[in-house]
Amino acid sequence: MRTIEDYITLAKAAVAALTLPTSPEGLYEPIAYGLSNGGKLLRPALLLASCEAVGGDAEKALSQAAAIEMYHNFTLFHDDVMDRADLRRGKPTVCAKWDDNTAILSGDTLLTLAVEKVVENVEPQKAVELLRIFNRAAIEVYEGQQYDMMFENRDNVGIDDYVNMIRLKTSVLLGAACKIGAVMGNADSSRSQALYDFAMNLGVAFQLQDDMLDVYGDPKVFGKAIGGDILNNKKTFLLINAINLAEGDTKAELNSWLNASHPFPGEKIAAITAIYDRLGVDRLCREAIADYDSRARQSLQGSGLSDEAIAFFEAFAESLMGRKR
Amino acid sequence: MRTIEDYITLAKAAVAALTLPTSPEGLYEPIAYGLSNGGKLLRPALLLASCEAVGGDAEKALSQAAAIEMYHNFTLFHDDVMDRADLRRGKPTVCAKWDDNTAILSGDTLLTLAVEKVVENVEPQKAVELLRIFNRAAIEVYEGQQYDMMFENRDNVGIDDYVNMIRLKTSVLLGAACKIGAVMGNADSSRSQALYDFAMNLGVAFQLQDDMLDVYGDPKVFGKAIGGDILNNKKTFLLINAINLAEGDTKAELNSWLNASHPFPGEKIAAITAIYDRLGVDRLCREAIADYDSRARQSLQGSGLSDEAIAFFEAFAESLMGRKR
Repeated sequence: MRTIEDYITLAKAAVAALTLPTSPEGLYEPIAYGLSNGGKLLRPALLLASCEAVGGDAEKALSQAAAIEMYHNFTLFHDDVMDRADLRRGKPTVCAKWDDNTAILSGDTLLTLAVEKVVENVEPQKAVELLRIFNRAAIEVYEGQQYDMMFENRDNVGIDDYVNMIRLKTSVLLGAACKIGAVMGNADSSRSQALYDFAMNLGVAFQLQDDMLDVYGDPKVFGKAIGGDILNNKKTFLLINAINLAEGDTKAELNSWLNASHPFPGEKIAAITAIYDRLGVDRLCREAIADYDSRARQSLQGSGLSDEAIAFFEAFAESLMGRKR
Repeated sequence: MRTIEDYITLAKAAVAALTLPTSPEGLYEPIAYGLSNGGKLLRPALLLASCEAVGGDAEKALSQAAAIEMYHNFTLFHDDVMDRADLRRGKPTVCAKWDDNTAILSGDTLLTLAVEKVVENVEPQKAVELLRIFNRAAIEVYEGQQYDMMFENRDNVGIDDYVNMIRLKTSVLLGAACKIGAVMGNADSSRSQALYDFAMNLGVAFQLQDDMLDVYGDPKVFGKAIGGDILNNKKTFLLINAINLAEGDTKAELNSWLNASHPFPGEKIAAITAIYDRLGVDRLCREAIADYDSRARQSLQGSGLSDEAIAFFEAFAESLMGRKR
């Protein structure tokens, strides 16, 4: 196997090599913009690594790698409209740089182009299998986004519902990337499922860590200001647990911070962080992260993957989860 | 072959038989609403008829018939957001009944469900062929919608550009429906292409007739008030030709009606209709309709289709084009 950096480089080249139509410009220019907007390319890199982990040749899975990145970008186009987001990776989102209609229609186009791409250059039997994995993940991603939007307007979100939401919204696509790569490498179902489970569980661990770092991270390492989720009353693992566990005075205090407007953001961040500490929800979050991280690693054991492949994905998990610690 | 009414009944049953997930409700309820909203089901009916026209069994193409109607409904969900439309077929649109986010996300889901459905219950070789036809039509539909939105903000739209726009936005999907049906009936490429060309050209004729009827139709037969396009300055075949042909005083008069606001809608409709008559753009439109209608019928000749099939589609064209005359 190559290094993760090599797979990212390959993935970048696969995306850069895409030839889009030029007309109508208003449809395809936003797509080119989105695809060149400097994402981490973790999904296509995982896809290519999975292909080689099962003995395949990553060079033969470049279309599928591009397809999974195209799908991911399509979800960003539409999510940014739904979430009214103006910036992504430090640059204007498509809906901000152009408008909502452009983001909707270019996003639709990107989705169909991704469907075309995922079955490119493969024999029909395999094409049908790839399409099935791709479509199932796509549907789950929509369901996850729907739950995410629902939960923001609901008071009684259960922690299992929340974890299921992040699994659907973000982790199944990582799983699908690995499974598609494995199918491209002609893996048996045991190995392709193991890679799916690895990436899916790792994705949950990563998202939970993101919740954690927003409150407890080092802003210099985390890359953005601390407390953003708290200021937005965002339903994270921490807040949901706090809402569910708080009683008496703590409950009243938490509700007051959530429901009233506060002129000093720093005070709200400090107060809610103190409530989290008092309730021990930071510990619960660390335990959940460790649990999913461990499930991810266990998925690799007994899967029939080579020692080299297992070592590669363990190192990948280490670097992903260690990145912001 | 059966009657067109029978194919519509079959198509209706195929759509009604779809089993959607129930959760999350906010995602799937709008889809069920859209699919039960009483469309004309011309696309799936044409698909089923095309299947039997080449000797196939329509009962075996029900998944594909449902898929094409699902795709069509997905485009309505998103177009209604982009066009800010509140009503469709006399009922609230999804974006009006729920909200834009719901229409975007349920629309995305419907598109992916349609992709799943179009390859359902067919062997891989055929699945790949169906998917290719479906995806190509989908991309062209997006391009057509993009041109449509562009043209509304442009002064110098050529008539060829306009006809190409309506071909992409609405007619290629009719063509794809026929081609998919033909492939399901194991047609050779000559017959499937003939059916594609028939429906595509008929679609253009139908859209041009719609432009015509908005001005010259009988409101009782047309089903909506006359002059809506004129009041909205909608770039139709008539208006584009009038803008391109008007000179001198007529040009000044047309521009004044287009650019100033007018308190009496009836006056604007009468004045612009008089300009159309003076310039003869109604005659140009009738000629273009006859031309595409004739191209549609000619596509059927020499295609290898049976006399019964040719008679069926000629009668279909007659009834579609005669409906509002």
